[in-house]
Amino acid sequence: MLPIAKTLKQGKRGILERLDAGEIVIGDGGFVFALEKRGYVKAGPWTPEATVEHPEAVRQLHREFLRAGSNVLQTFTFYASEDKLENRGNYVAEKITCQKVNEAACDIAREVASEGDAVVAGGVSQTPSYLSCKDKAEVKAVFRKQLDIFMKKNVDFLIAEYFEHVEEAVWAVEVLKESGKPVAATMCIGPEGDMHGVPPGQCAVQLVKAGASIVGVNCHFDPDTVLETVKLMKEGLQAAKLKAHLMSQPLAFHTPDCGKQGFIDLPEFPFGLEPRIITRWDVQKYARKAYDLGIRYIGGCCGFEPYHIRAIAEELAPERGFLPEASEKHGSWGNSLSMHTKPWVRARARKEYWENLKPASGRPYCPSMSKPDGWGVTKGARELMQQKEATTEQQLKELFQKQKF
Amino acid sequence: MLPIAKTLKQGKRGILERLDAGEIVIGDGGFVFALEKRGYVKAGPWTPEATVEHPEAVRQLHREFLRAGSNVLQTFTFYASEDKLENRGNYVAEKITCQKVNEAACDIAREVASEGDAVVAGGVSQTPSYLSCKDKAEVKAVFRKQLDIFMKKNVDFLIAEYFEHVEEAVWAVEVLKESGKPVAATMCIGPEGDMHGVPPGQCAVQLVKAGASIVGVNCHFDPDTVLETVKLMKEGLQAAKLKAHLMSQPLAFHTPDCGKQGFIDLPEFPFGLEPRIITRWDVQKYARKAYDLGIRYIGGCCGFEPYHIRAIAEELAPERGFLPEASEKHGSWGNSLSMHTKPWVRARARKEYWENLKPASGRPYCPSMSKPDGWGVTKGARELMQQKEATTEQQLKELFQKQKF
Amino acid sequence: MLPIAKTLKQGKRGILERLDAGEIVIGDGGFVFALEKRGYVKAGPWTPEATVEHPEAVRQLHREFLRAGSNVLQTFTFYASEDKLENRGNYVAEKITCQKVNEAACDIAREVASEGDAVVAGGVSQTPSYLSCKDKAEVKAVFRKQLDIFMKKNVDFLIAEYFEHVEEAVWAVEVLKESGKPVAATMCIGPEGDMHGVPPGQCAVQLVKAGASIVGVNCHFDPDTVLETVKLMKEGLQAAKLKAHLMSQPLAFHTPDCGKQGFIDLPEFPFGLEPRIITRWDVQKYARKAYDLGIRYIGGCCGFEPYHIRAIAEELAPERGFLPEASEKHGSWGNSLSMHTKPWVRARARKEYWENLKPASGRPYCPSMSKPDGWGVTKGARELMQQKEATTEQQLKELFQKQKF
Amino acid sequence: MLPIAKTLKQGKRGILERLDAGEIVIGDGGFVFALEKRGYVKAGPWTPEATVEHPEAVRQLHREFLRAGSNVLQTFTFYASEDKLENRGNYVAEKITCQKVNEAACDIAREVASEGDAVVAGGVSQTPSYLSCKDKAEVKAVFRKQLDIFMKKNVDFLIAEYFEHVEEAVWAVEVLKESGKPVAATMCIGPEGDMHGVPPGQCAVQLVKAGASIVGVNCHFDPDTVLETVKLMKEGLQAAKLKAHLMSQPLAFHTPDCGKQGFIDLPEFPFGLEPRIITRWDVQKYARKAYDLGIRYIGGCCGFEPYHIRAIAEELAPERGFLPEASEKHGSWGNSLSMHTKPWVRARARKEYWENLKPASGRPYCPSMSKPDGWGVTKGARELMQQKEATTEQQLKELFQKQKF
Repeated sequence: MLPIAKTLKQGKRGILERLDAGEIVIGDGGFVFALEKRGYVKAGPWTPEATVEHPEAVRQLHREFLRAGSNVLQTFTFYASEDKLENRGNYVAEKITCQKVNEAACDIAREVASEGDAVVAGGVSQTPSYLSCKDKAEVKAVFRKQLDIFMKKNVDFLIAEYFEHVEEAVWAVEVLKESGKPVAATMCIGPEGDMHGVPPGQCAVQLVKAGASIVGVNCHFDPDTVLETVKLMKEGLQAAKLKAHLMSQPLAFHTPDCGKQGFIDLPEFPFGLEPRIITRWDVQKYARKAYDLGIRYIGGCCGFEPYHIRAIAEELAPERGFLPEASEKHGSWGNSLSMHTKPWVRARARKEYWENLKPASGRPYCPSMSKPDGWGVTKGARELMQQKEATTEQQLKELFQKQKF
Repeated sequence: MLPIAKTLKQGKRGILERLDAGEIVIGDGGFVFALEKRGYVKAGPWTPEATVEHPEAVRQLHREFLRAGSNVLQTFTFYASEDKLENRGNYVAEKITCQKVNEAACDIAREVASEGDAVVAGGVSQTPSYLSCKDKAEVKAVFRKQLDIFMKKNVDFLIAEYFEHVEEAVWAVEVLKESGKPVAATMCIGPEGDMHGVPPGQCAVQLVKAGASIVGVNCHFDPDTVLETVKLMKEGLQAAKLKAHLMSQPLAFHTPDCGKQGFIDLPEFPFGLEPRIITRWDVQKYARKAYDLGIRYIGGCCGFEPYHIRAIAEELAPERGFLPEASEKHGSWGNSLSMHTKPWVRARARKEYWENLKPASGRPYCPSMSKPDGWGVTKGARELMQQKEATTEQQLKELFQKQKF
Repeated sequence: MLPIAKTLKQGKRGILERLDAGEIVIGDGGFVFALEKRGYVKAGPWTPEATVEHPEAVRQLHREFLRAGSNVLQTFTFYASEDKLENRGNYVAEKITCQKVNEAACDIAREVASEGDAVVAGGVSQTPSYLSCKDKAEVKAVFRKQLDIFMKKNVDFLIAEYFEHVEEAVWAVEVLKESGKPVAATMCIGPEGDMHGVPPGQCAVQLVKAGASIVGVNCHFDPDTVLETVKLMKEGLQAAKLKAHLMSQPLAFHTPDCGKQGFIDLPEFPFGLEPRIITRWDVQKYARKAYDLGIRYIGGCCGFEPYHIRAIAEELAPERGFLPEASEKHGSWGNSLSMHTKPWVRARARKEYWENLKPASGRPYCPSMSKPDGWGVTKGARELMQQKEATTEQQLKELFQKQKF
Repeated sequence: MLPIAKTLKQGKRGILERLDAGEIVIGDGGFVFALEKRGYVKAGPWTPEATVEHPEAVRQLHREFLRAGSNVLQTFTFYASEDKLENRGNYVAEKITCQKVNEAACDIAREVASEGDAVVAGGVSQTPSYLSCKDKAEVKAVFRKQLDIFMKKNVDFLIAEYFEHVEEAVWAVEVLKESGKPVAATMCIGPEGDMHGVPPGQCAVQLVKAGASIVGVNCHFDPDTVLETVKLMKEGLQAAKLKAHLMSQPLAFHTPDCGKQGFIDLPEFPFGLEPRIITRWDVQKYARKAYDLGIRYIGGCCGFEPYHIRAIAEELAPERGFLPEASEKHGSWGNSLSMHTKPWVRARARKEYWENLKPASGRPYCPSMSKPDGWGVTKGARELMQQKEATTEQQLKELFQKQKF
């Protein structure tokens, strides 16, 4: 058996130092979904005020990801831009300012990172300002405000993630790049490209040209779809003779039935996604496929729990030479069942069993796929939605159809 | 909107004080499954050495259940009997003795209980001693060892849970009853009764006669099956003119395809159960049905995460007059989606939507039900399994069939 | 390869002569469903006026069953009792009298039976007279009218089939027995017994005591459920030390989700049953299981097409020593694929492949099971339904519930 | 209610006369699949020797389609080219020559067509000669042989159908065109185009340029996929400023999980397709969609039974002004259930019910989709398959992969 990571703790090295050396870097999982289930984040706003309200809960989750093998702890600053927090103001108590939320997020991530072999990444994501058609300067100002805090707290590198429009992602990268720190950029798009129709390959090219050293995809789609999209990015970069590290952080949900905008349009989002949750074995297949595709920064997004991250670390343990701490509590491919009193449960203590299992849902009255709601939201549609006082979906749909969006 | 629990914190009252007054008592969820996913419990042995190794992780989970509305914090002492821990000895470090594990479990539960309106219950469960046909005195000695610690740490009441044989459960209740504290007893059986074929109604009668004030069912089956079984217990007690409070703590997995021994025999156990996980809305239906059936101690077992417990508290908030703390981060029936930018997501901010949703699995290549492995294990079969060095399931199956088990 | 039946054509022997000699007798399939799809029977009334209107279509279907291996051709007289035809009068042209329909049915069956090794059975089924609470004499008079025609046309034996109430079935057997010809009786019930709650074993005993030489189950449920019910009949007869031949003619639809009254209450009945249709391989499993259970009169009911009947004959060909004529156009277990140009199709030319295939529905938006409509209709309910002018299901349901049916 | 067709019987008009006048022409259904189930065609060879061996069975099926509303009776000459019949020679008795099979097919179709408002179409389909790389002259000679018989028997028009390669289809059209009769041409391709990668739009253009007056798609895919493909053909023709009538004859199976070569590669082909069979309501949706797309020759292929064809005629009855004869035995949208004794069955007598029903499979252990076997067969692959004596699928697969097909 491979040694566990604890015994291998190394002098901290930066993200590019690792990737440039050909190492595998394991990302962390999905904070908003995990903390929603634990009672600290509200679905809908999805804002991270828990860093101030309940730091112990955020700390614990970071620690679990670290134990599971994460080499990057992202500050829990998703949707923590000032415009977003204001937008969701009614949910956030008066004294929980944007600054405090971001600062606390940095402190907690740093504290836990010091317990193991992980670096801290400050993260920004898409803004209401862009969606409401503010101009470039205004949008950049929003990112810069978060960046100031990341710099003050001296995070190790920066991530621009969860962008549906490459234009906004490029603006984010440009701002983050001002810091001199390495920048990663991931979009929440599928193979059809961004919301304006820019294909993945072209998105990747624009992001690298803007200064990103690492590009890829996060959220919105299941591992297969995300890898398909990253593959298109890779091909786009090759065609443009550009170099960058590749990164993937998919959902931990099966979403073969998604439309262009991903799982948000599935009828099950966000409170009925349980039957779609991927197993640890699905994750091992994903990790292997990502590795084979040349991706070296491999993590997860919404739905990824600590045991999913551990599955990445276990799948790639042969390549890395060690297992994560949490593997002390996990037998590879179910081998911890080999002492079960029931012989037919013991029979499950092997790789072939779990690799080939087609798990049942226990829901014979439910379908296996859904039809997504909604329709592609274009810029024109966004504007329309702000102009009109459309109250019902039907009205809006008709409005849109008339206008030939 | 109803007030949240924090403002209602009351002087602590005992479990029977509450139930006798007709109040609803909300149990907690499943520790071994939740902590396995977080990286602190090993599937297979399922032992709770984390109370010593990683108390912060156990504490955090207790806290999440408390915030979600739990009125009972069970000490994390599942499978913490000395014979079980020894049995699993290779997994437990030398210095982690049975006594330390149980004592730490009591301390952590008490610490968190003091933060809210909850009492502490010391728990015992079925033992390897019974399964290996030790006699009554020996089995009782095992329970007594754990009880001594519970008394020393002064837990508020006691639970004998997860028993497949009513005979052993009765022995446990008899031991626990020596303490003078209230005793609850739940079996992990379905409508067909215990492993010797004793029907649920008769199990309940025996448990109450042995001294249990609260009886019911936990683990092994989904909410519907558990409620069906508790109903049979209720009818048995009525027929025998006995009085007791009723309790249910089912799995958070859909298991319509289970055999007599529950989810352990399903091919997905324990690493492929994801598609079976119940939604918060399934839990609300369960809570309502349990309440209507006259059950007043309503909780969960394996698979129940904090948000599932919160769903019980929210469903029964009208009866109780208040919401749990964690409802600060949850809109009832999805109403937190009412400000979403997409109109079709806003359209999900209503009860009818989530009540009627038939969630898809996103797994079109998987079935909806499985055929359980294994066969009913009788006492004779257990003995045989210990005698024989049966290595393969097939050999054992043939052996059993010859002997007409 | 076994010889085909044509070369084995024998002097005609009676049904009991065959069964008493231990031979397997193969029944025919479902006329009303097959002819509905071909355009000659109307779903709803399900009456057999096609014997007069389109004798060529009826003749062709008989011939296909004969070629497929049927040793019994049932006259197409389902629902051809006078009260039923009158009841459905608006569908039947003036000159198509009850007598003509029954006579034509006998003539056509006899004509085709003479082309091969089959006997002709005259069939009666449950009557509107019984359901509307007519007395024994009146109901018997209805059966006697049909019997008169069967005697005039000299059918080889008689079948009372599709009875939901054993009381009516017994009356039918008593009438048919007056003829002196052998009588078979099958009920359309499941393991829960008839509509008054008489268990299958007791139904069988009553039918044999009334004079039936052959008893069993037809229609309403899938092969597994029918065999389970016949098994209960067999046990009932054994317990009563009675002897009779056993018979099974199930649906060709998978109906694991049926309630007590069978497939009629499934939401898919009768126009959406396609995804439930059983394959020829399902039929082979059924035939083998029926044979192993001691059933020697093995056929099918609604949904059974000629190729389903052929599957019975092919499965039991080793026991019988010959194949049916239609096997000239069928390779056993898919072996006719062994010359396909595609190697992966050739790979399907073997028993293991088809035995183990779990066929997909191609319907990812559909569930695998349905919840049956309706509720158990008792005698009281029937009366109520005739008294009241209940127009909507909801009203009637409420009415019934109030009256505690 | 609309009048039924019988009362509207018209002087026979040719296929183009009808289509040019904007009328809807209803095709017939699938002979080989229907007659396989009836016991007259062998799956694997799929040859039509039944026209000689059992003309009454072929005649009956034609008659059922005619009654269901078909305006075209295709001669049952599928795979009746001389090279195909020889290829399958071991299945065909000595005296059943190619000429006799084709002549009988014409005679039977003509006899039945005279009973109603239908014309007779002589059909040719893809040949083993082309697949084994014979040259243009040789392949054309095969078609010409069949054409000679069609001319002698004076069919009303000609159909070249079931072609996977547009090159061969064009050759067929060129031969048929020599007759001076109208020619229709349909390919068994999906949206990805023919086996050499020619897109549907281009296929259509080539076929029209070769002389086809009607073009479209038949077989291999479900109605949705076929309509998607015909739409691409329509767009191709528009772009090329060519005019032709459109035609669709899809499978009566749901095949969303097909690969490029259609249902043959699905693991269920051909003996486990039952759960995929489409309902009459699915057909009504298909007919409406086809009509809306501008298709005016609407029929079916494998799996289409008479009741499926009737569903086309009923859906389009408002446009046509009459119902087919077989609608005497069918209530529109289930209205024949309106007199059922059970109120919940009566409640199914309405359009909304059947339109919205998501029919269950009754197969909870089966998936909803399958992964297709095989791989795209290119010309090189075909040649390889003829050269090599590859016996197992695995060997061949490896062989192919090495050669980078």
